[in-house]
Amino acid sequence: MKLYDAGRAPNPRRVRIFLAEKGVSVALVPIDLGKFEHRTPAYVAVNPLQRTPALELDDGTVLTESIAICRYFEELHPEPPLFGTDALSRATVEMWQRRLEFGLLGVVAEVFRHLHPAMAQMEIPQVPAWGEANKPKVLSFLSLVDRELGAREFIAGDRFSVADITGLVGLDFMKPAKIALPDEFANVRRWHAALAARPSAQA
Amino acid sequence: MKLYDAGRAPNPRRVRIFLAEKGVSVALVPIDLGKFEHRTPAYVAVNPLQRTPALELDDGTVLTESIAICRYFEELHPEPPLFGTDALSRATVEMWQRRLEFGLLGVVAEVFRHLHPAMAQMEIPQVPAWGEANKPKVLSFLSLVDRELGAREFIAGDRFSVADITGLVGLDFMKPAKIALPDEFANVRRWHAALAARPSAQA
Repeated sequence: MKLYDAGRAPNPRRVRIFLAEKGVSVALVPIDLGKFEHRTPAYVAVNPLQRTPALELDDGTVLTESIAICRYFEELHPEPPLFGTDALSRATVEMWQRRLEFGLLGVVAEVFRHLHPAMAQMEIPQVPAWGEANKPKVLSFLSLVDRELGAREFIAGDRFSVADITGLVGLDFMKPAKIALPDEFANVRRWHAALAARPSAQA
Repeated sequence: MKLYDAGRAPNPRRVRIFLAEKGVSVALVPIDLGKFEHRTPAYVAVNPLQRTPALELDDGTVLTESIAICRYFEELHPEPPLFGTDALSRATVEMWQRRLEFGLLGVVAEVFRHLHPAMAQMEIPQVPAWGEANKPKVLSFLSLVDRELGAREFIAGDRFSVADITGLVGLDFMKPAKIALPDEFANVRRWHAALAARPSAQA
């Protein structure tokens, strides 16, 4: 199999971190978003939605969506479990993965896409008012995350999970989106530092 | 356990349809969004994100996020399987659930929230240019869905899944968002009619 990857973009990074946590190695095929390689006919044939990452299996089947790709590897390589281990923990991981996706990573992405000059040719139309409207949502959501992290080590419980990966990638994406993390979010800072110190964060 | 529900809103409906397909009955607690009951201190204590649905277990644990709630019931009541049955089908269901969520339901929701006058007090600020920017995305995505549905009965394969539920709710949400489904999408129309005819669609 091979994984179509796109360097610094947040979603491909989620899958690379996941694979590093699993200790699984997959051949990477680089797609240069800056050169619009995701819009070439060859890549559109892989993923008509023109997004990265995409996982191509040996029989040609293609899986897209970072979390779907991660779940496929979870099924193939169950250890260490990153999607929970029983009914409640699986649902809790899913809840926090989604909360962090919709409340942090996705919102930061809207700020980046609609306000960053580098995205003017990617995001058409850019709607600066929409980018601005998302900025306060990031901080409001992080105040909830900060309260929750006062009670436990990782966001979905005492065990590292795919939800923490979305959290790390979302927090790191704040830098190019030019959103500062307030000093007062001490628990978020502790969590971010711990996640960033894991070897997988370099993936 | 009890499920905080909100009538016609799309996300609570996803969970009700899922439960109907499973043949599972859960006590519903109605939350009237029109009366801002999701912002009362009592409900904020249940879900600080002030969204519906939310599932409260007998020990007080709360699960939010429609798909996390559905996955919890999938774990408790595996039959009929609505999240896939093996590694590849589980990943495929997840992929299509997410594609339909991000490409249809979520996009239609942006159109509704940012253009419908009834949402002026809910979505602050409304950004009409953002609502307009999302309209063409719906049709572009549905053209992909239409091609895919030419080859199979349900969106993630030959078996009904949670991805179809997101599809049905997304298509039905186009009406209040004032987006017409073009006649040319014959496969989408066939699929929608089949989903809407299932008893669960009345849930």
